[in-house]
Amino acid sequence: MTSDPVDPLRPANAEDVIDRLVEWLSIPSISAEPAHRTEVADSAVWLRQRCLDAGFTSAEIWETDGHPAVFARWDGAGDEAPTVLVYGHHDVQPVDPLEAWAHPPFEPVIVDGECRARGAIDDKGQVLYHVEAVAATLAESRMLPVNLKLLVEGEEEIGSPHFEQLLVDHAAALDCDVIVVSDTGMISPDIPSTDVAMRGLVAATIELTTSSTDLHSGSFGGTVPNAARHLSRLLANLHDDQLRVAVDGFYDDVVPLDDGEQRSLDEQPFDETEFCAITGVAGLEGELGRSPLERIGSRPTAEIVGMSGGYVGEGIKTIVPSRATAKIAFRLVPDQDPTEVMRLVDAWVTKTVPPLVDVSITWHGGVAPVRSSTRGWAFEAVSATIASIWGAHPLLTRVGGSGPEETIARRLGAPMVFLGVGLPGDRIHAPNERMVMDQFWRGFHAARKLYGELADRWASR
Amino acid sequence: MTSDPVDPLRPANAEDVIDRLVEWLSIPSISAEPAHRTEVADSAVWLRQRCLDAGFTSAEIWETDGHPAVFARWDGAGDEAPTVLVYGHHDVQPVDPLEAWAHPPFEPVIVDGECRARGAIDDKGQVLYHVEAVAATLAESRMLPVNLKLLVEGEEEIGSPHFEQLLVDHAAALDCDVIVVSDTGMISPDIPSTDVAMRGLVAATIELTTSSTDLHSGSFGGTVPNAARHLSRLLANLHDDQLRVAVDGFYDDVVPLDDGEQRSLDEQPFDETEFCAITGVAGLEGELGRSPLERIGSRPTAEIVGMSGGYVGEGIKTIVPSRATAKIAFRLVPDQDPTEVMRLVDAWVTKTVPPLVDVSITWHGGVAPVRSSTRGWAFEAVSATIASIWGAHPLLTRVGGSGPEETIARRLGAPMVFLGVGLPGDRIHAPNERMVMDQFWRGFHAARKLYGELADRWASR
Repeated sequence: MTSDPVDPLRPANAEDVIDRLVEWLSIPSISAEPAHRTEVADSAVWLRQRCLDAGFTSAEIWETDGHPAVFARWDGAGDEAPTVLVYGHHDVQPVDPLEAWAHPPFEPVIVDGECRARGAIDDKGQVLYHVEAVAATLAESRMLPVNLKLLVEGEEEIGSPHFEQLLVDHAAALDCDVIVVSDTGMISPDIPSTDVAMRGLVAATIELTTSSTDLHSGSFGGTVPNAARHLSRLLANLHDDQLRVAVDGFYDDVVPLDDGEQRSLDEQPFDETEFCAITGVAGLEGELGRSPLERIGSRPTAEIVGMSGGYVGEGIKTIVPSRATAKIAFRLVPDQDPTEVMRLVDAWVTKTVPPLVDVSITWHGGVAPVRSSTRGWAFEAVSATIASIWGAHPLLTRVGGSGPEETIARRLGAPMVFLGVGLPGDRIHAPNERMVMDQFWRGFHAARKLYGELADRWASR
Repeated sequence: MTSDPVDPLRPANAEDVIDRLVEWLSIPSISAEPAHRTEVADSAVWLRQRCLDAGFTSAEIWETDGHPAVFARWDGAGDEAPTVLVYGHHDVQPVDPLEAWAHPPFEPVIVDGECRARGAIDDKGQVLYHVEAVAATLAESRMLPVNLKLLVEGEEEIGSPHFEQLLVDHAAALDCDVIVVSDTGMISPDIPSTDVAMRGLVAATIELTTSSTDLHSGSFGGTVPNAARHLSRLLANLHDDQLRVAVDGFYDDVVPLDDGEQRSLDEQPFDETEFCAITGVAGLEGELGRSPLERIGSRPTAEIVGMSGGYVGEGIKTIVPSRATAKIAFRLVPDQDPTEVMRLVDAWVTKTVPPLVDVSITWHGGVAPVRSSTRGWAFEAVSATIASIWGAHPLLTRVGGSGPEETIARRLGAPMVFLGVGLPGDRIHAPNERMVMDQFWRGFHAARKLYGELADRWASR
């Protein structure tokens, strides 16, 4: 453990905080896998108890038709103070391929100033620095400058299927003046940034069936349809020669960047060599005529997430596969509508696959893209906070990832700001996910600072 | 069990024969799966013992660097009689998807006049009718009309990687005047046929790698290469718009059918509706301008046997996959050369995949295509035998499947004939493989008849 007692970022109780972080990250709260249902619930119970111990006025488990959320609140700042709702999630991604992990994903270690575990940065680590910021502030002064609500859901990694219902059911409890999202990142500790938009997400499982049974490739090969070949052709046609998504009408509702955002995008540094080193790729590719940062944040995409069909064991099996399956994730940008995109993709698949192939499409979740304002008291508070902690005013970025932020903003009707400490090399959703501990401690200080900045700017708005 | 004591096809000891068939089929001799290595050996031991019990002069296990073969001989017919070598194999295909089997694949059942088990028709059942034919003839007369050698290998389903070495090592023991192959089928019991060519086979596992790790589709999607997308494009390009194999030079060595064979092909009945019912497909597709039977027997093909990449579990995982793998089986026709085809495919893959994708190709086995003569004493013997047992002279067919027959014919330098009782609906290599028992009993009688026909025509050749 790189314990440095003179590190000014580390609070006095840093070791206790780390113990709690390790304890929570040890719970495999994988929302996508039914086998881990109990652990997602255990994770919620852990967080509720930690919130109570931290000094929140109350903390509850909110059950859903899927995995539970946690809601905690501290109400002592009075009616004049703003009510701040912090959003995060306690569920995590699956961990396969397990053999690619240097350490077991649910046995967290602190190595080289990094916490290595599934969920370290996405998103338990980012939730915990808020909880510990509340705990520290209350321990010092018995008071927070704002009324604080913490909403931590358990289904973010599966597209938040029950989250909107949760927001509807608990609308009164969730009433707030500003939403702080802590589930994102920044360009680097030296070039801090904050987000002003997130991509939406819809994902499909597409299964093609050409026969009731696999067929012998000697006896039938060459004259019966091959499900794997048809899937390959469908997937190969998903992008055109310009690497644009070939689904008819896919770009119809995409709003171009305005001049201000385009300028901010152009100012962002991008080191292709470093980017390739971080991602482990030999080179970049994507929609022609767009820069890499533009492609990630402000352009919609379709990525094949996985595919399978036929025999993939050892050696060879001489069959014509009768079934083949692919999963495709579509990232959406303002003002694409998830429901409309699903309709367009359904129509495109139906049009593209020939009649002798049976098609089944299953949709997973549906998250709309979201934009937040770059002006006003809330944005100024987060901008000043980041400037104070990281030493520079943040650049404006768009998040390539997706979450239920659009739903929160729409349902709660409050401005939304982003405080996120993730870094490009954190390997979220991949083996060896990490959180850089210096960023964790900066997040802790930034959270404490932000509550004060929000209170001040609310008062003088 | 559909036991009908007055069925003229069933010999008096039919129940004993069936018991032996069931016993042998119960041994899961899957050569492709290392976990079943012991059972492949057990299968060889079983067959050796059965040959000794049947009255063969000797029976031996022949070890190889892979799975063992069985060699049995009966030498009592004298120098004037021909020596007949019967070829078959005792290894079987893998059984997945296991859940698609109505009965467990290695718990054989006799239902509705069919034996249902992995290996029932491919190829244990076809080996056993020869062994039982020898046993019955020897029991009746203490004599066979020919000197008989039985060679049953254990690696046919994995491309016979050690078979040629076996033929070289045991060349003296394998000396023969004619080769009888019993690992194929016929059009139907009413329209018997015999084979005059078999396709060759080479198969490749192709792995594409775009990064050292899977990447988050939100953070990186749209700007990094996706291994699944590149694999899809490669596989989609494997065939051109005419559904011809797009590998450069692939058809250069294909010899067109001569007029005689083309006429025989044109005479063969083909019921597309029945073919679709048997294969469970909604329609046929394949190389344009060629009939279905032509595509299966006399045209080379490339079939995607399987593919995998990325996340294919429940729900969705928002990654850009870093690896994707496909298996492709190429069926070859005279005079395509397996080594040359491997070279052509290697060159085509290298040319087709862009430089930022890492490619690895592993080749599995390599079986050349083979043609046999449609004239001469041996062909006339098998033709007369089939006419006697099935009531009509056989049409000439080409086998879509592949085996080591080219190697046997080339190494042993003897004419080769095909006696095969398989039917189009036998589901070889697929779940619920079966053998129609009437065809088994006809095979038993045909084997006995064939030995006599070969002896007679050898004498008067």
